[in-house]
Parts: sequence; structure tokens; C-alpha cells
Amino acid sequence: MPTVSKKGEQMPQSPIRKLVPFAEQAAKNGKNIYYLNIGQPDIKTPEVALKAVKENNVEILSYSKSEGSEIYRQKITNYFKDHDIHVNAKDIVVTTGASEALLFVFGSIMDPDDEVIISEPFYANYIAFSTASGINVVPIVSKIEDNFALPSVEAFEKLITPKTKAILICNPGNPTGNLYSKEEIQKLTAIVKKHDLFLIADEVYREFVYDGETHYSIMQEKELEQHAIMIDSVSKRYSMCGARIGCLVSKNESVIQTAIKFAQARLSPPTYAQIASEAALDTPRSYFDNIINEYIERRDTVITELQKIEGIKVSKPKGAFYCVAELPIKNSDHFAQWLLEHFDVNGETVMVAPAGGFYSTPGYGLNQIRIAYVLNKKSLIKAVNIIKEALKVYKD
Amino acid sequence: MPTVSKKGEQMPQSPIRKLVPFAEQAAKNGKNIYYLNIGQPDIKTPEVALKAVKENNVEILSYSKSEGSEIYRQKITNYFKDHDIHVNAKDIVVTTGASEALLFVFGSIMDPDDEVIISEPFYANYIAFSTASGINVVPIVSKIEDNFALPSVEAFEKLITPKTKAILICNPGNPTGNLYSKEEIQKLTAIVKKHDLFLIADEVYREFVYDGETHYSIMQEKELEQHAIMIDSVSKRYSMCGARIGCLVSKNESVIQTAIKFAQARLSPPTYAQIASEAALDTPRSYFDNIINEYIERRDTVITELQKIEGIKVSKPKGAFYCVAELPIKNSDHFAQWLLEHFDVNGETVMVAPAGGFYSTPGYGLNQIRIAYVLNKKSLIKAVNIIKEALKVYKD
Repeated sequence: MPTVSKKGEQMPQSPIRKLVPFAEQAAKNGKNIYYLNIGQPDIKTPEVALKAVKENNVEILSYSKSEGSEIYRQKITNYFKDHDIHVNAKDIVVTTGASEALLFVFGSIMDPDDEVIISEPFYANYIAFSTASGINVVPIVSKIEDNFALPSVEAFEKLITPKTKAILICNPGNPTGNLYSKEEIQKLTAIVKKHDLFLIADEVYREFVYDGETHYSIMQEKELEQHAIMIDSVSKRYSMCGARIGCLVSKNESVIQTAIKFAQARLSPPTYAQIASEAALDTPRSYFDNIINEYIERRDTVITELQKIEGIKVSKPKGAFYCVAELPIKNSDHFAQWLLEHFDVNGETVMVAPAGGFYSTPGYGLNQIRIAYVLNKKSLIKAVNIIKEALKVYKD
Repeated sequence: MPTVSKKGEQMPQSPIRKLVPFAEQAAKNGKNIYYLNIGQPDIKTPEVALKAVKENNVEILSYSKSEGSEIYRQKITNYFKDHDIHVNAKDIVVTTGASEALLFVFGSIMDPDDEVIISEPFYANYIAFSTASGINVVPIVSKIEDNFALPSVEAFEKLITPKTKAILICNPGNPTGNLYSKEEIQKLTAIVKKHDLFLIADEVYREFVYDGETHYSIMQEKELEQHAIMIDSVSKRYSMCGARIGCLVSKNESVIQTAIKFAQARLSPPTYAQIASEAALDTPRSYFDNIINEYIERRDTVITELQKIEGIKVSKPKGAFYCVAELPIKNSDHFAQWLLEHFDVNGETVMVAPAGGFYSTPGYGLNQIRIAYVLNKKSLIKAVNIIKEALKVYKD
């Protein structure tokens, strides 16, 4: 019998997915589960986007341009301009989600066994895209004690080899909720310029920035022009995860021309989703203001409640809608499964994401979990209380 | 300045795309162009699919399951059953077009430098997906004189090495219009069983089979159960190229489980497109009957008209909506460009696909073109007449 590839075997399974059968079973058994495990917001998609799809007048659902429809790419430059990011339609390749954008970028700038440095904990699928692309992730540790701030320049430079092609950041960060300051971006600028690397920034949480801070994009850094590759997506911004529309943006023409070859091979991004995404650009600012206020309250709620738990350490997120908490346990994989299988408070339990999957250094993050605060405040209070009660009786 | 990867440099550009700027210029200059170059049918998408999207009641456009929505995978098994293909929902991974299905398959069963044997001429993007996946295409030549029939078992066996992991066929074939018989599929079965290979079949043109022939799927071959991986798509079947919904189907559980890991990494296929695809399964049979009658007439028209041209050789397609024609010229890349730049009959010209891009053996197919008969008969007659007139004056 023919067998699967080594690459296929090495493809990681998402740490969350492993828990899904246990969650399904718990739900079947009648448990009410608070899902803190996944970045699927409960926020409604903007009416203007939903309406555009309902009122579409497509008769032949044909391919769009491989690099994305002209009108959408043009229109999104205005959105970027409002965020002080000045790019042209020709600097943009529309992709099927940020996922595909990352795959195109890895393929365009890295050959097998090339290395990308990523500060861990990081979005677990970065490992999957790297495995799929045959490249290696080199982790650099950031610490919960430092609120996951950027590691030092020296720490980065120690890891740079002739195989290093890029540094990848997620800003604001999933799973940390960290927001890099302008100074931190400028530190990274100095490193990538000195060592002739690309700086890839996954900025899909750009809108979700709190406490009056402003997001500083790598595209705002003039000196980075030939080094910067920005990843974007409509998924989180407009609560349109199921659209599957993202893009990659760069002023480096060779990168764009190469990415377009990958884009042409898969023909085009989805047409209905582009209709929705184009319309979503007309979402009024008030939509975001409401959401951001809601998330600030959720964050404050979740942090306040978590801090009431003895022996817990929590990072204070400045953006996105995640936080990482360190628990007085040994193995959060086991804890997360146990919560679903063996614990409840009045018939209710919680699903969390064990943080081990967000680290590539073996053994790191095993006592941490990621919490996505994508539920309303009342649910968050109940959910954190369940964790608190669980820790009183849980034994590793 | 950091540079793109070798892989990125090696990514081929579609032979058709190279012509696009010349086509755009010709259109700007007021020329009317008959587009015979691309498999974008002019057929309307089934009303039932369009309607389902217009009447959708999505409020939060959320992720679907990574392997595709349960209901869609369940429902498509009934469609397959009508084609004597007996599979379960668990044997199916829904993908973002057949393109992504192929990428998942290559990743799941092949490691860098592994080989896949493909009979050429073949769909040009197979090369692009292979390059992106770091694997090698080993071409086996089929000939226009034999109507692109399956090469001999001996010819295949000569090419099999320890690195060979699979044979890939497109049936019915793009660009050849070839339809493999049950006997040919059984020859392939013997080869892959003897050498422990996978047989991948791109069957996206399944519905487009003419002259009372029936399509024989690799999934109908019992002995192939652990070897067969079928690729499918809604693009051509329902004239829904812009949906970007395909799937991969296999009874080999390891292949499916591995492909699901690739699917999970990119989160989910597009949601609106799945709504359309699910509804499209209710398309009445009469829709296909009408289309197939239309395509038979188009095929007969284009073949009859082409055969009137002196010095031309044409394959007789039994399926899909393409044919390959060998012209009395040296370089069809140049001819195709010249048609757009320097030739017209009463202000009208033709865009064709040079066939060199459908071969991976250097120098092959340079005097051939692919014609997609996706226009109405009147246009096809005019278009072929333009080629005829062009050949009278064209000089290599």
C-alpha cells in the first residue's frame, strides 16, 4: 500500500483540534461549554457586506483576476491610507485568507531548509505553513513576565545564519495580545536591514488596539520599503472569517511579481467573498468603535477575573482578543481535556487552547493556556470562574 | 536588498498570461477578440446556486469545518453515487478549488524531489503546483496522431524510479479532450498496484463526455481502493469557476487524515461558495443535457472548421471542451502574440493558448495550440476562419 509523505506526517495537528472530539462528547452529554479556545468572534458581520452578497447580480460565477479584482485592490488602498499606510493596487495580491498569503510569501522568498525567526509563543499555524513549505521556524522566546515584549537585538542576532531569510511578527499578537511599539518596529528594521532579511508582519488584528495606543505598521517604516511584507485579512476586522479573503502587501516588486505566479497557479480568490470584502470597506467607523469598546470591557473583565485566581500569571493584552495565562499546573493539554471530560460547575464547563502548540521549543508553554475573549462579559465571568473552581480540584 | 527564492524564480508563468498584455492592448486598439484561450465557460451558473447565495441568512460569516461543511460533504456523496462512485462523507475533503486539492495531495503523499508521472500535454498548472511543492514532474509523451491515447505500460515502467510516488491523469483531459477508456484505467491500475504508487485523477470535466461514451472514474476500480485519489471541482460542472470549491476524495484513510492537517492549517474553505455548491447539487439533469448538446455542436463545429485548414492536424476530443491543433508553423507563442498584435479580419482577431506550456519536455508542442470551445457556434466559425486567414499570411 502506498504511504503518505514524511512532510505529511510532520504536519502538526492544531492543539485545539485535538480537543474537538472531547468537546463534542461533552456537548452531547448535555454540558454547556464556554468556548474560549478559538478566534471566531461572536460579533455580527457588517450589514453592508452581507447586503452586497444578497444583492449581487452575478449570472456567471467566473474567475476573478488572480491577484484580486481591480476594484477591490484599488478600494483597499484607501482603507490602508486611513491607517497611514501608503500603497498602490499594484503592491497588493488578494489571497484566500491570510493563510494563503503566508504560503505565497514563504514560497516566494524561501527555499527548502531556509529559516524564518519567529518570537514564540506564536500563532500555531505558522509551524504548519512552514512544514508545508519545507522551511524551518527558528523560535526566539518572549516571556510572560515581560508581557511578551520584543526580545533583544542581541538575542535575534545570535539566531541569524546564512539560511535566515526573514523575521515574522504578528502585531497585534495572537496568542499574546502584545502590541509592538514604534521603537520595537525600528529595532527590527535595523536588524533586517543589517542582515538583508525580509520582515513579514501579520497585521490582521490592526483594528483591535486598546488603551489609546496606535498600531505602527511595518509599511509605515520608510527604510523598510524593500524588506517589508505585510499580511492582512478581512476575517477578524469585519468578523468575516468564513469569507477567506486576505492579501499580501509589499513595495518590493520582485516579491509581488513572484507571489502573483503562485496566485495565477491557483487561478483566483473566491468571487462572492470579494464582493463581501469590497462592500465591507464601507463599514462605518462606529462599527469598530463599538466593537473596540466591547473588547476593552471583555479584556478588562477577563484579566480582572483571572487575577483573582491564586497562582496565576496573566499577560495584559494591548491588542487583538487573546491573552496568555500561566496556571499552577504541569500540563495544559491534559487540563484542557479534563475540563471537557471530567469537570463542570452546574453543568457548565470551558474549552481553552493549551499553549504548548504556540511554542516550537519542546516543553515550553506547557503550563500556559490561551484565552480568546470572544464571548460577552457575563459568559466570560462565568467561564473564568469555572477555571478557578477547576484549579481547586484539578490534579496533574 | 533581500531577494526572492529559487523556487519563486522557478515558478512558471502561465503561457496564456504572458499574452494578456497583448490582448489588452489589442482590445484598447478597438479589435474584437474571440477568446479561445481559457476554460471559462460562457454558460450560466445554475439558477438554484445563485438563488441560494442571494437568499442566504448568514449573520456572522464564520469559519466552516476545515474539511468542509458536514451537510455539503454528505450531499455530494449522492451526486457521486449517481455516477457509480460510492464514497462516504469521511472520504472527502472540501478544498478551495481543485487547485488546493492538488496542493494538499502533493503535500500529503510526496516529499521534496519525489516524482509524479504525467502524460503530456497536460494542464499547465500541474507544473506550478509541483514547483510550489518542491516535487518533480516526469512527463510521458502522448501523441496527437494517436488522439492522445494512454502511452504503453512499458513506456510508463521505463520512467518509474524509487522516487516515483504517483501517476497523475486528467480525465477527461485538459488540454487534449481525451477520455480514457475503462481498459486504459485498468492498465493504469495494474501499473500502480505493481509499483505501489498512488493514482491521482483530476476528474473535474466528468460531466463533459460526448458521443454516448461514459466516464469511468478511478473510484469505480475496486482494486484501486488504497491507491486512488480523485480530484473534483464545481468550477466547470456548474460554470462556477469563481466559487473556488473543489474536493479530494479517497478511500485511503491515511491520505484523508493527512490532507485534513493541511486543511486545518488554512482553517476552512469559503463559506458563501459552499452555500452555492451545496445548492448546485440540486441542478436538474436537463441543465447538463442542454449544455452537453451545446458542447457537442461546438466541438463538431470547431473540428469541422479546423479540418478545412490546409496543413493542420486536430485531435478529436471525446470530453471536456478543449482540443489541440497542430499548425504549419514553428512557434505558436509567437503566432499567438502576432495574432493579437498584427492581424485582424475586419477588425477581429483570436486569442489562443500556445501549447508549449502544456508540455514539460523542452521543445515539444511548439507548433501546437489549445482551443477552448467555450464560445457559441457563430463565434467559433468566425474565430477559426481568422486562424485560417492568418496562416495564409503568417511567417515564422
